[in-house]
Amino acid sequence: MPVNFSATDAADLLSVPGVRIGAAETGIRKAARLDLTVLLIDEGASVSGVFTQNRFCAAPVQVCREHLERCASSGLSVRALVINTGNANAGTGQQGLERARATSAALAQTLGLQTVQVLPFSTGVIMEQLPHERIVAGLPSALADAQVDHWGRAAQAIMTTDTVPKAFSAKVQIGDTAVSITGISKGAGMIRPNMATMLGFIATDACVARELMQPLARELAEASFNRVTVDGDTSTNDSLVLIATNKAAHAPITSLDSAEGQALKAALVKVAQKLAQAIVRDGEGATKFITIQVEGGNSGEECRKVAYAIAHSPLVKTAFFASDPNLGRILAAVGYAGIDDLDQTGIALYLDDVLVAVQGGRNPAYREEDGQRVMRQSEITVRVLLGRGSACDTVWTCDLSHDYVTINADYRS
Amino acid sequence: MPVNFSATDAADLLSVPGVRIGAAETGIRKAARLDLTVLLIDEGASVSGVFTQNRFCAAPVQVCREHLERCASSGLSVRALVINTGNANAGTGQQGLERARATSAALAQTLGLQTVQVLPFSTGVIMEQLPHERIVAGLPSALADAQVDHWGRAAQAIMTTDTVPKAFSAKVQIGDTAVSITGISKGAGMIRPNMATMLGFIATDACVARELMQPLARELAEASFNRVTVDGDTSTNDSLVLIATNKAAHAPITSLDSAEGQALKAALVKVAQKLAQAIVRDGEGATKFITIQVEGGNSGEECRKVAYAIAHSPLVKTAFFASDPNLGRILAAVGYAGIDDLDQTGIALYLDDVLVAVQGGRNPAYREEDGQRVMRQSEITVRVLLGRGSACDTVWTCDLSHDYVTINADYRS
Repeated sequence: MPVNFSATDAADLLSVPGVRIGAAETGIRKAARLDLTVLLIDEGASVSGVFTQNRFCAAPVQVCREHLERCASSGLSVRALVINTGNANAGTGQQGLERARATSAALAQTLGLQTVQVLPFSTGVIMEQLPHERIVAGLPSALADAQVDHWGRAAQAIMTTDTVPKAFSAKVQIGDTAVSITGISKGAGMIRPNMATMLGFIATDACVARELMQPLARELAEASFNRVTVDGDTSTNDSLVLIATNKAAHAPITSLDSAEGQALKAALVKVAQKLAQAIVRDGEGATKFITIQVEGGNSGEECRKVAYAIAHSPLVKTAFFASDPNLGRILAAVGYAGIDDLDQTGIALYLDDVLVAVQGGRNPAYREEDGQRVMRQSEITVRVLLGRGSACDTVWTCDLSHDYVTINADYRS
Repeated sequence: MPVNFSATDAADLLSVPGVRIGAAETGIRKAARLDLTVLLIDEGASVSGVFTQNRFCAAPVQVCREHLERCASSGLSVRALVINTGNANAGTGQQGLERARATSAALAQTLGLQTVQVLPFSTGVIMEQLPHERIVAGLPSALADAQVDHWGRAAQAIMTTDTVPKAFSAKVQIGDTAVSITGISKGAGMIRPNMATMLGFIATDACVARELMQPLARELAEASFNRVTVDGDTSTNDSLVLIATNKAAHAPITSLDSAEGQALKAALVKVAQKLAQAIVRDGEGATKFITIQVEGGNSGEECRKVAYAIAHSPLVKTAFFASDPNLGRILAAVGYAGIDDLDQTGIALYLDDVLVAVQGGRNPAYREEDGQRVMRQSEITVRVLLGRGSACDTVWTCDLSHDYVTINADYRS
């Protein structure tokens, strides 16, 4: 059960002019479930992507990077994405690369495109060869299924251990033109994105100058997917793709600092954050959604170090699961976060509005029942004041429960 | 149930001439359990210690550092240790420091020593004030209990969530003289020592030049406690103390590189490694003991990065718990360990003698049943070959089970 989050009604998702989506059941790992998605993009669109920094990145991630570079250097556009679940095509060596390329080539051929215009994405088990022949065989039925209003179906089709599909839409006014944004994501475990999440796709019909697309994708990832963690395990397949179909009537946005650029970015960030937070809310075994806000640091980087130390501590996570205000564990995590010259006497800790610790020690006015009250909630904000400077940052995470162990001990069986 | 480890019979532990130990029940947190230990050291001994790098280090750790420095600068010797369980005296601010000092002062006064000659140690819950008056009240009965053959009793008295006491002895020949070594340790959770473990005390009657004691303690910690992890949480209280009573008849050891120095160090390392590994074997919820050996790195540091990434991955740890050879998770952890220029095609992975992956992909000859066979064992060695250089390092850890969550969700209740 996700924490305070249920699937958006498919009827409430906005179509994005210039994008059609189809899905199919191809039996990649299990029978009778949607496991193949194609996303078809009209000519004239701009596509950018950010990918995992895991050095063991999956074959499709390597092929995506290669195709995006070759499109950029040859003036071609990305025109289709092909996404499978059930197999991550990671840790599969040279053969994995060949199979990822073969999948792209098959879809390109059917659509009359060049192979580099198709980006492949995979998610599922690691270190097993991709049964690409099943994907290729399933392409005709996925293509026959393609519709502009299939975003909800796509959100369903890209799920693995997710319990609910993750999709959000927003409308934003660019000058006189109303522009649509719709995004989908998947992921519940092996979540500590470093560049993007497991898989996230966001499309808009806004008109965006091509050279803005890559910085925009990076900023989106930084503000959303790069700030969530479930278990600290950075996946081999993290990918975030941003599509601007340029179909809307407004004049192209040529600067992210213009009023129009800022409005679009703000709307995109909002959708991206909802998608990223949905992954945490649906984190494997999650029963609580935790916001960790670190303030008063010398740099954003040291705030993030502290936030991630707290977010990854199994002791802190199990205390949240138990609703046990064993809050010394949070202080211990602050202490080992890697700030060498940290002065513990300058530190304060809040749990929502409850001041738990001041000057590195227990707040004399703190009462266990106040901490207990907050710990029982399903949404909790931990605020750490470092007292060193003016930088701050925020990370979202969940607790560590018995179900996390159960899910990951049983994932392949 | 610890993994392949049971308590050493107290009768098999060697007394160390010059050290007497007493314990008492003082009701610090729970009634009717040994929770106070005093360790009395004869005049003429040398004592050194290494302590947690956690910036939120506990009050007793701060006092220990202060007392050791003041002894060193004034030519005084440490003559007693006072150790309590049930309360870590961490996250307790100025008052915590005063209470740690008051405990030392009380024991010093009884023994006719100066306060700086007593080192205090605490372990237990964090962020609650130490009931030091109960400790002070219990000192007479702990002192009355003091005997040279009470090492087993001390190992019992310093336990918290440990399920078995941890104590080991060794004899080593220094020239014509047989020298004794006995050590005790405690710890099962919040274990990723950075300098030392939760609490470890090792004593020998060997004669060691005073200036060698600190480098020797550091080397011991590096070879043992600094290579184990249960949950990646570096404690606020980690302390390792090394005592040489200098009672043995041989000529003092003045170099660790001499034959005698090497023999003593090797024997001390052996005891320290057994104590450190015992902590992992008794790790909270542990069902398996995992050795992670990383070879072919450019530096020891990058080997440790990879080893710890694997050792801390909840996905890898749950796969071990489930005996599931979902070994791609290990490759993913190698990939995000933080080696920026890692070439995945150079990597090989062994599980005991089974070659699982070569050149970054699945070994074509690898059969799932071979991986399965090893995963079912209670002792497993993971070997990662980075193919970059000649450095190597080893880390010991355990799996992540339902019981870890249960223990840590219930610890205070």
